[in-house]
This record gives sequence, C-alpha cells and structure tokens, in this order.
Amino acid sequence: MAIRKLNTAVSGLGRMGARHATNLLHRTPRCELVAAFSPDEKEIAWARTNLEPSGVTLYTDYDEMLKHPGLEAVVIATVTSAHAEHTIKAIEADKHVLCEKPLSTTVEKSQSVVDAAKRKPHLKVLCGFSRRFDASYRDAWDRMDNGAIGRPSILRSQTCDKLDPSGFFVEYAKFSGGIFVDCNIHDIDLALWFFGQDSVVKSVTAVGITAVQPELRRHKDVDNGIGIVEFWGGKIAYFYSSRMMAAGQHDMTEIIGTEGKLTVNGNPMNNLVEISEPTGVRREIPAHYYGRFEYAFVTESNEFVEACLENKKLPFKLSGAVQAVKIGCALQESLNSGKKIQFDETGRRIEEARL
Amino acid sequence: MAIRKLNTAVSGLGRMGARHATNLLHRTPRCELVAAFSPDEKEIAWARTNLEPSGVTLYTDYDEMLKHPGLEAVVIATVTSAHAEHTIKAIEADKHVLCEKPLSTTVEKSQSVVDAAKRKPHLKVLCGFSRRFDASYRDAWDRMDNGAIGRPSILRSQTCDKLDPSGFFVEYAKFSGGIFVDCNIHDIDLALWFFGQDSVVKSVTAVGITAVQPELRRHKDVDNGIGIVEFWGGKIAYFYSSRMMAAGQHDMTEIIGTEGKLTVNGNPMNNLVEISEPTGVRREIPAHYYGRFEYAFVTESNEFVEACLENKKLPFKLSGAVQAVKIGCALQESLNSGKKIQFDETGRRIEEARL
Amino acid sequence: MAIRKLNTAVSGLGRMGARHATNLLHRTPRCELVAAFSPDEKEIAWARTNLEPSGVTLYTDYDEMLKHPGLEAVVIATVTSAHAEHTIKAIEADKHVLCEKPLSTTVEKSQSVVDAAKRKPHLKVLCGFSRRFDASYRDAWDRMDNGAIGRPSILRSQTCDKLDPSGFFVEYAKFSGGIFVDCNIHDIDLALWFFGQDSVVKSVTAVGITAVQPELRRHKDVDNGIGIVEFWGGKIAYFYSSRMMAAGQHDMTEIIGTEGKLTVNGNPMNNLVEISEPTGVRREIPAHYYGRFEYAFVTESNEFVEACLENKKLPFKLSGAVQAVKIGCALQESLNSGKKIQFDETGRRIEEARL
Amino acid sequence: MAIRKLNTAVSGLGRMGARHATNLLHRTPRCELVAAFSPDEKEIAWARTNLEPSGVTLYTDYDEMLKHPGLEAVVIATVTSAHAEHTIKAIEADKHVLCEKPLSTTVEKSQSVVDAAKRKPHLKVLCGFSRRFDASYRDAWDRMDNGAIGRPSILRSQTCDKLDPSGFFVEYAKFSGGIFVDCNIHDIDLALWFFGQDSVVKSVTAVGITAVQPELRRHKDVDNGIGIVEFWGGKIAYFYSSRMMAAGQHDMTEIIGTEGKLTVNGNPMNNLVEISEPTGVRREIPAHYYGRFEYAFVTESNEFVEACLENKKLPFKLSGAVQAVKIGCALQESLNSGKKIQFDETGRRIEEARL
Repeated sequence: MAIRKLNTAVSGLGRMGARHATNLLHRTPRCELVAAFSPDEKEIAWARTNLEPSGVTLYTDYDEMLKHPGLEAVVIATVTSAHAEHTIKAIEADKHVLCEKPLSTTVEKSQSVVDAAKRKPHLKVLCGFSRRFDASYRDAWDRMDNGAIGRPSILRSQTCDKLDPSGFFVEYAKFSGGIFVDCNIHDIDLALWFFGQDSVVKSVTAVGITAVQPELRRHKDVDNGIGIVEFWGGKIAYFYSSRMMAAGQHDMTEIIGTEGKLTVNGNPMNNLVEISEPTGVRREIPAHYYGRFEYAFVTESNEFVEACLENKKLPFKLSGAVQAVKIGCALQESLNSGKKIQFDETGRRIEEARL
Repeated sequence: MAIRKLNTAVSGLGRMGARHATNLLHRTPRCELVAAFSPDEKEIAWARTNLEPSGVTLYTDYDEMLKHPGLEAVVIATVTSAHAEHTIKAIEADKHVLCEKPLSTTVEKSQSVVDAAKRKPHLKVLCGFSRRFDASYRDAWDRMDNGAIGRPSILRSQTCDKLDPSGFFVEYAKFSGGIFVDCNIHDIDLALWFFGQDSVVKSVTAVGITAVQPELRRHKDVDNGIGIVEFWGGKIAYFYSSRMMAAGQHDMTEIIGTEGKLTVNGNPMNNLVEISEPTGVRREIPAHYYGRFEYAFVTESNEFVEACLENKKLPFKLSGAVQAVKIGCALQESLNSGKKIQFDETGRRIEEARL
Repeated sequence: MAIRKLNTAVSGLGRMGARHATNLLHRTPRCELVAAFSPDEKEIAWARTNLEPSGVTLYTDYDEMLKHPGLEAVVIATVTSAHAEHTIKAIEADKHVLCEKPLSTTVEKSQSVVDAAKRKPHLKVLCGFSRRFDASYRDAWDRMDNGAIGRPSILRSQTCDKLDPSGFFVEYAKFSGGIFVDCNIHDIDLALWFFGQDSVVKSVTAVGITAVQPELRRHKDVDNGIGIVEFWGGKIAYFYSSRMMAAGQHDMTEIIGTEGKLTVNGNPMNNLVEISEPTGVRREIPAHYYGRFEYAFVTESNEFVEACLENKKLPFKLSGAVQAVKIGCALQESLNSGKKIQFDETGRRIEEARL
Repeated sequence: MAIRKLNTAVSGLGRMGARHATNLLHRTPRCELVAAFSPDEKEIAWARTNLEPSGVTLYTDYDEMLKHPGLEAVVIATVTSAHAEHTIKAIEADKHVLCEKPLSTTVEKSQSVVDAAKRKPHLKVLCGFSRRFDASYRDAWDRMDNGAIGRPSILRSQTCDKLDPSGFFVEYAKFSGGIFVDCNIHDIDLALWFFGQDSVVKSVTAVGITAVQPELRRHKDVDNGIGIVEFWGGKIAYFYSSRMMAAGQHDMTEIIGTEGKLTVNGNPMNNLVEISEPTGVRREIPAHYYGRFEYAFVTESNEFVEACLENKKLPFKLSGAVQAVKIGCALQESLNSGKKIQFDETGRRIEEARL
C-alpha cells in the first residue's frame, strides 16, 4: 500500500515562501508540492531552477493556481496584506490552508478569515505561529503543563531583530502593521498559549522609541517597543521588540510561575562553538529568525500535512490568531496615543469616558 | 607617619546593620568602628559578643551615640522609616553619613535629607545604592561610557527575591513603601546612573499581581510588579520585581544601546560549581541579595571612608536618591490607580484634566 | 527535466540502521530508498510497517539485496564485525558505499576495505564519521582553517555515554573492539581532521578503570578510558571516553592553538530550555549521541548521495579511517599492556627492544 | 576583653608577597603585620609606601627579621628556591609558617621541611595550596563528601596561564621546577584532596610540546603539558597545563564519580558582564590566577591566623605537599624521558628492569 501524499501549493515565493516551498518539497515526506504562485518575475525565476525540475507547476495568477488539478492544500506566504484574501479564496475553493502569521494587520480582516473557515468545518486552516512547533517551546509548555512551575503568572517575551541599517525596516513598516503586530504577535501568541487561549485581556499599555530609524515615525512605528498586557485572573505578560540588536536575532521567553521559572533561549547561540581569543570568550548568534526557528517550520509543514491527510485536530485553534492581532493592534494604538487601554471582564473595551 | 582612621559608628544592628558593622570593623582598613547603636535587646546582645571585644562602645540611645567623643561618621542601617530622621540628626551633629537606601519612602522626607546635607557642604552624605559599588555594574558602566554600545536607549532591570512563604514580606510591606520603592529603587537608580542623573521622566506606568501572597493587597502592595519609565529624549527603562523566585535571588540588568548590549548577571550563580546528575546539569544561585552584593558593600564602606578622610568627591550625588524615590512612588501610585502618570519636559507632573 | 535520484539500499535495521533508513527515505531528497536488508525478524517487522509502504523491498539475504535491480549504493549499518565484509561485497558488486564507523575493529580488515575501494576508483566509498558532517564541528574547522587560533597544537576530545546500568555495555564490549576503538575513534578522527590527515603518530598511551562495570575486564575493556596521542611535529591529542555519565551524553572537543581556542559543545544541552526551581537552575542534556548528532547524519546522507550522483569528491578520504582504527587499537593495546607505544617519524612502530 | 592578634611577618615582597602583605595588613582582622623582609630594593621601596606607615618594620636580612620582638608567625612568599630554607629557619626560630607552594622543587628538600615541622609539633606549618581555600572548590568537595557524585573516579584538572610573549616564562623556567611542578602542582594537590590524601600513585606519564616558546627546552620544560596519574584502587587524574591561553587564565577541574560530576570553573569569567556586539556575545576572563583566586588567599590568611591563635587543626596536613611535589617531579621526569613511570602498591617506584 503506497503512502498517500497531500497535493499542496505555495503562494508567494519571497524569502519565507521559498523556504516553505523547499521544506514542502524536500523535508515533508507526505507532501507533494504540485504548484507554486508568485506575481514576481525574480521569484518565478528562482522557482524555475529550484521547483520546476521537481515537477512543480508555476503560476503567476493566484486564481489559476487554485484550479490546479487535484490541489488539496495551500501554504500562503505572500505579503501580509494579501494573507486574508488569499486564505479566504483558498477556503472557498475548498483547500486546506496554512497561512503565515499574522492573518491580517486588522482585527476585522482577521476575523473574516475565521468566519470563512467556520463555513467549511471539514477544512484545516492553520495560522503559522512557528514557535508553537519549536521543540524548546513545546518542552517548556509540557513542563508547565506538568506543574513544574506551579501556576504560571508572569510571562516575559521578546522578538528582537538584528540591526539592519539598510532602511529595510522603514520600507517594511508601511505594510507590517507596526512592531507590536509584526514582531510581538509571536510573543502575544505565546502568552495566549501559556496562559490559556481563553485568557481575557484587562489592559494594554505600550511605549516605544526610534533609536536608530527616526523615519519609522512616518508610519507610526518605532524600532524599540515595550508593552504590558494584563489579563483578568492575575496574569501579566510583558513584551519587548527591537530592530537594533547588534549581535543578531534574540527571541526569548520566560514563564514565571508560583513555584519556578522556565526560560527559553535565554542565551542565544548560533551553534555549539565557543571561541577563546585575546578579547575573551565569544559565541555568535543567529542573524535571522530562521536561524533560530528553521526546524520549527519543518515541523509545522509536517504536522499541517498530517492533520489534513488524517483529519487530525490541528495543534491550536484559528480563532486565537484574531485574539493575537487584537492585542497587537491595541498595543500599537497605545504606543501612538500614549494611553493605557482597558477592557472589562468580558474583554470589551472600556471607553475612556467610563474610566 | 601612622595612617589616620575615620571614627565611625553604626546605627541599627539588624541583618544589614550587623553586616555593615562587621565590614567597618574588619574589612575597611581606614575605618575605626568606635560606636554602635540599637534599640533592640537581641541586636545589642549580638554586639556584645561581636563588636564590644574590639573596642566598640554600644548605645541604646541614638542621640547619646552621636555624642561619642571623636565620632566623625555614621552609617545608618535602621528600619527605613528612621533613615531620614537619623540622617538629619547626624548631619546636624556634624557627622558624615552613609545611609542605607532609600532615604525615605516619601519624596518630601527624602528631599529634607538633601536639604539638610546642603546646609553642611563640608560633610559627605551618601545614599547606599550598593550596586553603584559592584564591580560588574562598574565594568558595564565604563564600557558604556567608552562607547561600547553606542547610545544607551533601553534599560531592563529586575530585583527579584527568593520566595519566602513565611509571611515575612507581608509584614515588611507595612513599612517598605511598596515593591517599587523597596526593590525597584535599585533598578531606578541604575536607570538614572546609566541614562544620566539629569534624565527627566516623561511617564510612569505600573501593574502588578499578588500571585503568592494576596494579603499584600492590604498594604497596597503586590508580589510581582512590572513598571515602565519613559524619559524625555528617547530613553525607556522597564523593571520587574518579584518576591517569588523559586531558585533564589535574581537581580539583573540589560543596557541596550544603538550598537550593542551589556548584560549584568544574566545567568545568576552562587559560585563556580556546576553539578551533573541524573536530572541534568545544575547550578545553585544566591538565596539573598547579600550573596550577590557582599563585596559591593565592602567597596562602599571603603570608598565612603576614604572620601571622608581625604575630602574626595563621592561617586554620586545625594540628590539622585530623591529622584529615585520620586519615580518609585509614582510607579507604586500607578500600580494602585491603574493609571499612567505623565510629566512635562521639566519633570512636572501633568494632571489628568490637562491630558 | 526531472531530478535524478540515487537508488539506495540499507544494510542492517537496528537502532542506527533504522535511523539511516528513515533519513534516506524522508530527509534525503535525492535518494530513492529501494531496498533494505536485515537478518533479524524484529527488524524486518519494523521495516514492514515503516519502509515497505513507501516502496522499499525487504531482504533477509544480503547477497540477494545486492542484486536488486538498479541498485546504485548501499548504506551499511550492521554490527561492526560485518562492516568490512559487507562493504567489500558491495564494492565488488559495483555499488557506492557509506559504511558506519569503524570500518572494522582490526587494522588489517580496515585496510582490506580501502584496498577493495582502490580497485574501483569510480565508486564513492565513505566511512561515516558523523562529526565531520556536524555544523558546529565544521564551523570550528573553518575558523581554524581561517587562522582564528593560530597553529592548532593541542586537541582534547571526549565521547562519553550516559550511564546504562542494564549491562548493555558489557555485552557490547564483546564485539566493539574496546572503548578506544568504539568511542574515541570519533575523537581520533577529529584529531586527524584538525591536525591534518597526514599527521604521523609518535606515541600512544592509555589507561583506564572499570568504575561501574568490572565485568568489562573480561573483554579487556574499561568503562572510563584516558589516552594521549603524540604526533610528530609538536601536536598532542588527548582523549577521554566514559560509559558512566549521570546526566547524559557528553561529546565535546577543544582545539587549542597558539593564538586561541575553539570549544565545541563545552556545555551540552538538550534544547534551549532552562528550568529555575528550588534546587537551582537546571538544563537537561541529550540521553544519546543521536540527540546530539541527528542532523549531522542527515547531512551525511545528503552529501553522500550528492557525491554519488554528481561524481563529486567526498569530504574526506577513506584511508583516514584505517589510520583512526590503527590509533584506536594501539590505545586499546596500551591500556591492556600498561605500556607506552612509540612510533618513528614514518609512523613505524618502534619495538621495545629498540627503545 | 580585647581581641588577641597574631604578630606576623612576610618574607618576600614580589608580586605574590605584596599581595600577602596587603591581605595580612588589611583583610585579616586577627593579624598584626609587624615585619616584612625583602632583599630587593624595589620591593623595599614599595613597602616603604605601603607597609611602613601602618607600623610594619622592614628588613633586608631574613635572619634579622626572625628576631623581630614578639614575632609569632611568618608567611613565606620568596622565590621557590628559598621556600624550604626560609621555612626551616622560621620553624627553628619557633614561628608558625605559611609557605607558598611548592615547598621546594625537589622531593628531598620538601621532605626536610616536613621533618623540621615534625620536630616542633606545637607549630602550625601550612603549605599555601590556595585552591583548598576557594569557596567553589570547598563547595564541590563538600558535595562529593556528601555523596552527590557517588564514588569519585576520574579527576581532570588544568592550570593554564594567559599567553605572555615577553619571554617571562622562559626566564621563570630556570627556577620553577618545570610546568608540572609549577602549574599542575595545584591540580595534583586537588587530586590528593578529592581522592584522599593517602592515595597511592600507580603510574605517571607525561608529554608536552613547546608551541610558542621553543627556548623552554633549554630548561627541560614545555609550554603545554599533559599528564596522567593512575592511583591504586581504580582512580585516575589527568592534567593539562599551558602557558598560551589567548583569552586569559583558565584553571578548572572536573570530578567525575559513579553517579555524577562536579565541575569547578568550566566557564571562566572575569565578572558578571556579558557584551553583545556585532561579532557576537562575549565575556572576558581573568588575566591572571589572582583574578580567579583573590578571595581564596584572603581566606587562607584568615584561617592560618586563626589556627595559630586558637591552636586549631589546619585544614590539611603538610606531608601532602611532599606527595604533590613527588608526583609533579615524576611527571616532569616522564615528560623528559618519554617513559611511563610505575609504582607498586606501597608507592615505591618500580625500576624499569623489573617491569
């Protein structure tokens, strides 16, 4: 009896899309990558060399790709602004979907994806919060779940990019939704994971500065942001995001409970090499998040494919992605208004007049 | 030519006072410990064994001690509520003073100490922010000062005590001024040191929970607090304080600049021993802050004594201690009001109506 | 144009063979796993579930498997005592071979494999020294090659297994060739890699104890061994191997040069999680070498396959494997004789009478 | 009742002597430093500034100093070649003695010190193995003693100096006794401490190279040495010493037992600062052993003084120092002869003819 494979397509072949395509093609045994879409000439050129020889059909029209014979699932890695639309179209075409985070930079659009998915309950629709698939985060979660730290109470988490003086992050800020929606969305998702998906936000506060790229203010963004999210029930998460780490990417998390603490990636490292030299002892750290999370993405592909083929439950619900965007947007708003935003115990926003 | 020594007294012989007395007696070569005061019978009993045989005169009346013949300086380590009064009395009696932090739990009383000191400019009056004397913090500061991290922009700092289920911290909260004044005062002082003593606060926000000791709410306090302090000029400090660290004391600081980062005590350790055992590789961490800062206190004593004897400049100004208390109290207020507190560019508080 | 894949078989489906088969099937894109051999019923049962459904033909006769139509390459992971014979047969059947280390536990048999390979220069024959494919070791080697540590002079390397009180290691010692041939063979190979494949041994000394499994002495083996290998030209490697690590597997290497030092895996860790708990701060470490080297084996498979398909040079020569066995056997001999063994500058052994 | 202090003198005011004098004067509360001797003009000049003002009488004649009125104890920190003679003279003059390690570079002279001490059993005579007073080593020893690692079986220990290209180490080699006697003497002493002072040597082997200072061969020394010492009863210690560490001093020890391992200073560090910069994350390490062991020397002074004043037992016996020198000399001999040296179960050397 031959193994059944899932006929899958990739939408978007930029940096992350190309990685997804490669993972689906070479590192996801039960996946058959059958099609790929990109509107971009350069990306198509890359695909001609790297995907076509393995039998992948290339498309420059997303709707055409959705009609690819036998297509069962789509992995969406286009620009964030197209995530929601492409996901909804795929759902309507009856395809399983793995969509890169965030679903959208607005709560409404994110919710519309969830609504579309609800109308097709037989489909698997997953938002790609890669850290949920990372072996270290899973190990930490399991330990917490087994009571290793008592009751989790404080979560500190950060997503910090290597300094890139090219101006890339300024361009990127036009579409990214802001540093809290783009970077801390991961940390927010972790808070919802570790504190419980049904945690209700009590308040949101954020501040930030533009230490290296003042032009970010044009897009209402910053290069260093700090946010605090209080949850009803005595839990607090606080976040840091930055675009100016000298040494490289440093994404890390601490979960502090009443009886212990779990730290994930407190001491970042590129590999297991330490260099002793006249200036001291040194280790390098990853330049990009992919250096930290490469295998989480591989696990993500494999689990998504398996869930589709076996009709297994996905590891987490799509609706959480809306909650994460909601908190991210509130933090970004607080950053720009300078005000703390409060919510009642049902999660409804308390207008300032009522405070 | 014999070395001249500074005739010094200690006020208060509790846990910290006894340590000061021991350091002054045995580890501060240019100090002559001549007197000690405590109103407490048990503390006096300890002193009879440990100080009197070395020629220290014991007093149970503070005012009497100030009249000790030849007394030149006083180290004040009584309960926080007596700090200001004892310091002012000593100043008025023309003694140099090293007063434990904080000067007081209120801004007004703290300022009155500074005012008293101003009237006696020939006296050395120091507030004992012990981290200023710690070799690692000094090394970090020197590196920053030498440009190692570009422009310092974000400071994260925490003061986290080992979990003490005895209820001690509840009793203590009656007098401590609250977790931001008691614990984070150190971190606030570090922010003022690393960002510059003249940094002007722009806003203050704090939240907190009582994860292990709900009775703390009776004293308007928490066992886990998180605060953010914005400074005018594009600098942010954020703080964490806790009374529930399972493994031990963890006081640490990160100073993040435009070109690098300095971390002090990111990985706490009790000593240089690592234990490999069936459950993994383990190191222990200090149970109390004295395990971390013992030698900082020794340096503090020695530098204070030398400054008095040689009429040298103290390493930092007394007025900063008022600024630290001001920020600590504002954080504590924000914690309890749930509101962000804002200040204009001169540091004057902006009333909410004006916001 | 479709990608060409290499038709490959696996010989031996024990612990390591099953891993090789899985890697070849699922993580080696350019490999087509077409056949697998095992003489063992349980292993065949495993293969029926895990390999057959993917189109792998199973054999219980090695010679039959070699006749599998279209077979191009064989990966040999049988018991060590069959390595040489299976490899030579495969070579004679005109197949490329990747053989697990060591080629054999004797120098003569190891050499016979090299001789067989020499007669078929068009074939790729690789001895699977997995550390040569590990990203951290490669990074270290590249740094050394770029002059980061000046002239490499001292190499310390260890292969230390987790304590296994089951008696497994005693059984295993019957066939393993001894701890220096079984464990330190990796470290010896690293010495030859970092010091240069043509390094000539000057002397060999070894000692050892049986701290936990005295029955090992029956097989002339120990559970803790220490060896020193001097090379002509002023280089020394020293090794430690152990079967009694409480916390888990700890394989590590230091390369010390005239201007610096490179450390690989000085601080072993299972993942990026650190646990703070009342007994201190703890991390777990891998229980087995596969937890440390899993991805090195994946890289090994991929590079072997690519070398075969593209007729590329293998990353290192087969003859080095004989040199490693020669040194390993000499260490084992020294352990048992209690004597230092010396070699002249051509590498010829100096008989004791001549010393 | 006033505290009684021990009237002490220092002999030798070079680098280490000056540190001893400073510790005795300022950090040893129960010590009264009354006298100091040095034959060196520069050292005397230093003492005139740093010791004389505190009431220390300076001598340029050692015998004269021994006659200093009321003198009770002498700390000897002269060149190694004078250790034994000065110690014996002091003993004969009825003084307690703390002598820097090693007692001598020969076994005979070392033994003569022990013999002299035996004739005056009321005197405290201590060989200054500073690591015995180090808080981390003591913590490790206590853990071992409490059974934390089962039966200690393998000890790895190293004493590695920062590279000093000035040629100092070549000059120094004339008198030092060689790298095994000068550096590894500490590690040998640790082996005797952790394995038991009565451990009997079974064999000794050493090799070495001159990687950076070939002129060392003139003095039969090396700049990198590796030695193995087998003890009867199934215990092995192995050592590394080096004069070419790029990053700084790295003295470390691992004690491996049947149920665990203790590591002391596996990751050397100068202080608690970590620097993140474009080249990675870096920490500095101590440039010299005093940066690592400063407080061990302070503890040593204090415990020696207290033992003299209170007639307490010293923490370890003088005779062990002879055993350490014996092993160090045997390693140095093995290094130069290229031969393994064997001993019978009584510790008597087995001549080669008998092997």
